Amino acid sequence: MTLTSPDTTAVGGRPVVPARGALRPLGLHEVRVTGGFWAVRQGVNASSTLPHARAWQDRLGWTGNLTSGVSSPDRLGREFSDSEVYKLLEAMAWEAGRSPDPALEAAIAEVTGAIASAQAPDGYLGTAFGGPGRPARYSDMTWGHELYCAGHLLQAAVARARTAGPDRLLEVARRVADHVCAEFGPDGRQDVCGHPEIEVALVELARTTGERRYLDQAALFVERRGRRSLPRHRFGWSYFGDDVPIREATVLRGHAVRALYLACGAVDVAVETGDDDLLRAVAAQFDRTLARRTYLTGGMGSRHTDEAFGDDFQLPADRAYSETCAGVAAIMLAWRLLLATGDGRYDDVVERILYNVVATAVADDGRSFFYAHTLHQRTPTAVVPADEEQLGFGGGPRAPWFEVSCCLPNVARLLASLACYTATVDDTGVRLHQYADTDIDTRLADGREVGLRVRTAYPDDGVVTVRVVKTDDEPWSVTLRVPPWATGAVLHTSYGRHPAPVGDVVVHRRFRPGEEIRLELPVTPRFTHPDPRVDAVRGCVAVERGPVVYCAESAGHDLDALRVDPTTPPADGPGGVLVDARFHAPADAPWPYGPPPPAATGPRAPLALVPYHRWARGGPSTMRVWLPTD
Amino acid sequence: MTLTSPDTTAVGGRPVVPARGALRPLGLHEVRVTGGFWAVRQGVNASSTLPHARAWQDRLGWTGNLTSGVSSPDRLGREFSDSEVYKLLEAMAWEAGRSPDPALEAAIAEVTGAIASAQAPDGYLGTAFGGPGRPARYSDMTWGHELYCAGHLLQAAVARARTAGPDRLLEVARRVADHVCAEFGPDGRQDVCGHPEIEVALVELARTTGERRYLDQAALFVERRGRRSLPRHRFGWSYFGDDVPIREATVLRGHAVRALYLACGAVDVAVETGDDDLLRAVAAQFDRTLARRTYLTGGMGSRHTDEAFGDDFQLPADRAYSETCAGVAAIMLAWRLLLATGDGRYDDVVERILYNVVATAVADDGRSFFYAHTLHQRTPTAVVPADEEQLGFGGGPRAPWFEVSCCLPNVARLLASLACYTATVDDTGVRLHQYADTDIDTRLADGREVGLRVRTAYPDDGVVTVRVVKTDDEPWSVTLRVPPWATGAVLHTSYGRHPAPVGDVVVHRRFRPGEEIRLELPVTPRFTHPDPRVDAVRGCVAVERGPVVYCAESAGHDLDALRVDPTTPPADGPGGVLVDARFHAPADAPWPYGPPPPAATGPRAPLALVPYHRWARGGPSTMRVWLPTD
Repeated sequence: MTLTSPDTTAVGGRPVVPARGALRPLGLHEVRVTGGFWAVRQGVNASSTLPHARAWQDRLGWTGNLTSGVSSPDRLGREFSDSEVYKLLEAMAWEAGRSPDPALEAAIAEVTGAIASAQAPDGYLGTAFGGPGRPARYSDMTWGHELYCAGHLLQAAVARARTAGPDRLLEVARRVADHVCAEFGPDGRQDVCGHPEIEVALVELARTTGERRYLDQAALFVERRGRRSLPRHRFGWSYFGDDVPIREATVLRGHAVRALYLACGAVDVAVETGDDDLLRAVAAQFDRTLARRTYLTGGMGSRHTDEAFGDDFQLPADRAYSETCAGVAAIMLAWRLLLATGDGRYDDVVERILYNVVATAVADDGRSFFYAHTLHQRTPTAVVPADEEQLGFGGGPRAPWFEVSCCLPNVARLLASLACYTATVDDTGVRLHQYADTDIDTRLADGREVGLRVRTAYPDDGVVTVRVVKTDDEPWSVTLRVPPWATGAVLHTSYGRHPAPVGDVVVHRRFRPGEEIRLELPVTPRFTHPDPRVDAVRGCVAVERGPVVYCAESAGHDLDALRVDPTTPPADGPGGVLVDARFHAPADAPWPYGPPPPAATGPRAPLALVPYHRWARGGPSTMRVWLPTD
Repeated sequence: MTLTSPDTTAVGGRPVVPARGALRPLGLHEVRVTGGFWAVRQGVNASSTLPHARAWQDRLGWTGNLTSGVSSPDRLGREFSDSEVYKLLEAMAWEAGRSPDPALEAAIAEVTGAIASAQAPDGYLGTAFGGPGRPARYSDMTWGHELYCAGHLLQAAVARARTAGPDRLLEVARRVADHVCAEFGPDGRQDVCGHPEIEVALVELARTTGERRYLDQAALFVERRGRRSLPRHRFGWSYFGDDVPIREATVLRGHAVRALYLACGAVDVAVETGDDDLLRAVAAQFDRTLARRTYLTGGMGSRHTDEAFGDDFQLPADRAYSETCAGVAAIMLAWRLLLATGDGRYDDVVERILYNVVATAVADDGRSFFYAHTLHQRTPTAVVPADEEQLGFGGGPRAPWFEVSCCLPNVARLLASLACYTATVDDTGVRLHQYADTDIDTRLADGREVGLRVRTAYPDDGVVTVRVVKTDDEPWSVTLRVPPWATGAVLHTSYGRHPAPVGDVVVHRRFRPGEEIRLELPVTPRFTHPDPRVDAVRGCVAVERGPVVYCAESAGHDLDALRVDPTTPPADGPGGVLVDARFHAPADAPWPYGPPPPAATGPRAPLALVPYHRWARGGPSTMRVWLPTD
């Protein structure tokens, strides 16, 4: 039904290009972030994170594994380290599309050359398997990550093709995909990879190349999973999403990143094949995951052991896993469902994760990052030296690098392409999804050229000004989003002041060039209460301000002793958002269970909270998002 | 200072034989459990668990690894599987001491022969290292478990020597210990084993054989640990107790079983060498662990990932790890500290763990067991087929066997020797520590022979009758323990009725044969509240009855919706202990955080709770110990 005209001729720089759906995504050539919260982070990402990650990958030999041209017994790094090189290359591709730079182009060419040199004559690409002294290809579908790595290579090639046009990397990717189709097609190995990723990548490559075979192979992988073809493992089949066919599942489960990548692939397959049953199934799973298995921050994953979703409402604050990569993957999924359905709830999800997971992950200098995101730090984190690789993965402080360093390149590719997530074109006009200083110059569905300049100090402030800089004399619409917390929002247009209820606010009219729309969102602090079934935070409140979650960070305080008065609303004040608090630490008893403890006593005083995304930036500290009430 | 007269001549059947301390332990020849709660479990242990475990060890080739006489490339099981054979042999030795049985004697002889055949000429014993196609001896101190295995062999030999006299196994153990001393002595390898165990075992072997060298080597291992001699690992040095020298630590941390075994070894070293500083240091660490890092059940270990203690007050109910082995190890430690100090608080710990971890672990038929002990099961557990080995370890249902099956032999050795934990001799008489039907026939410190018969339906009922069956005309004392929950206990003697305050109640007098003492402990249900710093169970109460923790188990109820009225005390009633409860499940919101949820509504009705140790015996179920209050 689709894919007759490959997208490669239109170098739009769009992260996702579905053939159908409620919304048309914009590319980096149509929308740019020009200032504010995210522009700062995009700058740091370009100038600092990308070279930092490249240097680590070189230092640890991950790039060199590819340069050496063939896998060898001396190969360095984990079995999936190739994928980090590919993902970083993807980030570099988006960044080159966002902000052209000769040095970056040279780096892209160099890494592309290394990758091309490592490809086998039959298209296979991968340094961990198949070479001298290495295990045989596809001998460990559970943990080998071969198709996972291939998927990231495809995504890098798609990003490059969409930002710079078809090139050598796309040819490498085509040959990888052809190899995968030959090897794992209907008559080939009846296997799935332990880590989903190839599914979403194949659909994107199909979109980019117009090759239907890649879409068919993706659909085959999606259908093949859930049939327990992977061997028994102590994490259970659910860890791999191999417990239940995806159409029969009711919620995301198992390893969070695996589950989310697979869901992305399934949505892409559903969209491209017109499979609305599959689309509805995945959307329902994500909806239930949001209702029952997601942290206040939008973070996903409750278990350290298997980096997995917990049971419903199992959301411990102090053992929150909430891997950075799961945040990125959840944005990928929410974005796909938004494009498919136009349902603004998915914008809320994207926004929540952006401000509270993505913005939290990376240090101000772009050179260290959180792998996981606890919501309650009981003992101050250690300081990690700038030259020290963290063993393994998981909890702990922001670190310059991890043995498993999937998260930093993942954030980097998102940040470089972030502008694309701020606006789309729908049937009648332009729709704004995320508020930032952006310049939008695009065409409506009917081809008319329009231009908008969005200016805001969001999320610090709730005023968003949208100026129409290009229009014709025909009517069209600008749709603005009023988030669920923004009760009482007001819209100012040239016709006056209007209440702006939660949801989509559509301004449809004949715009004049220079005309302004102003949305005022009430960005004031508020208490947020948990569903009573979230056992871990019973009797607590959290504080949010606009889309930003706040936290108490230790500054000489014993946060175990903190009690907040839930009857006094939080308020903006000196040093941050103030709550009425006291500190009451009971004396230790030899045994901590017994008669009712005495009520908290002691003077109350204002306590300043800070945005969660700012925590641990001043060095080791304790922290809590959920504040026990008196 | 000690060890001049080895204990082997006195076959007392005592699990721990310290050279000094406040209390003298009794052996299996001096105290027997004759009926009641624990007698049932001892019977099942003997008739069912021991052969069940033996059959699994044979079936999986763990015994065969030893029988084949030398480690080989075809060796089966994990690197520490030898230790399970040894630990089961230890359990068999205690059981043979408790209840002689020719078939058991034959099995002991057979396994002893297999072990002896596997010992190398230089004393080294172990099937995982050193043989053809195997890694070199001591090439992996972190995970090799070689000294851990050696320790369990020593403990098995000590158990056998103490119950049956010196034999071939003791000779094997001596040669193992001599090898360890030669290899790891002051001038040898400056290493420690990743898993403590050799320390406690060497002291016990020193006690049994009178060999001072073994004690010195144990002391050396204790002092050597905490200096980061093990390589960096993502779990951190704390996992191995190798982060801080044991004298400088303030709390138990890292892998719970490792920490507790090490603490046992340190106490034993401290007692035998007169090192009161070391003794006080370990006692203080355990006290803080009890005050801040222990579950209501007495279970220890909050983290699945590394089977580790959490931070202070990090005690999630639904991710409680509370490994069975950590329960056994905590009893070992509490018992040692009790013997050293005479402080009855340690009896409370032992009792709590016995009724709520040990009694919970094993199925009624003795043929399946919990590895970990959650306090909140959100989704029903799976059913494990009787012939299915669980991969790995950790959570999930009672299973017949695990790939890592440390727990079942550990419980088995404790149950077989359990009588010894019920009473001791102190300076003036006999002290009762655990209430059960027991026959006690022993000698006082001055050599006088005394006899007691204890009869009780404890813990169902709180009446404990102690009859003096043997005495002379001189005064001596019977000391009874009144647990902390037993406010209002009453003691009846031939002199009348006396209030019995919490703590030790000493009856000192000239007893007449046939004279009875009756202690009445108020075993009635009570609410228990957590320290407010235990975030995971804020706003909840638990119900205890005597030493037994109760739980709500699903019987068609949605336990997520359970709300208990904390103002109506729990009461004995039909079907168990009744609380006033209602079920209020809020409707799912798309997002589970927001304005204050509505108060729980709906009718209240009595809900029957069951002892925690009974849960999941009727098949898969949901369960919770901590009950949210209205």
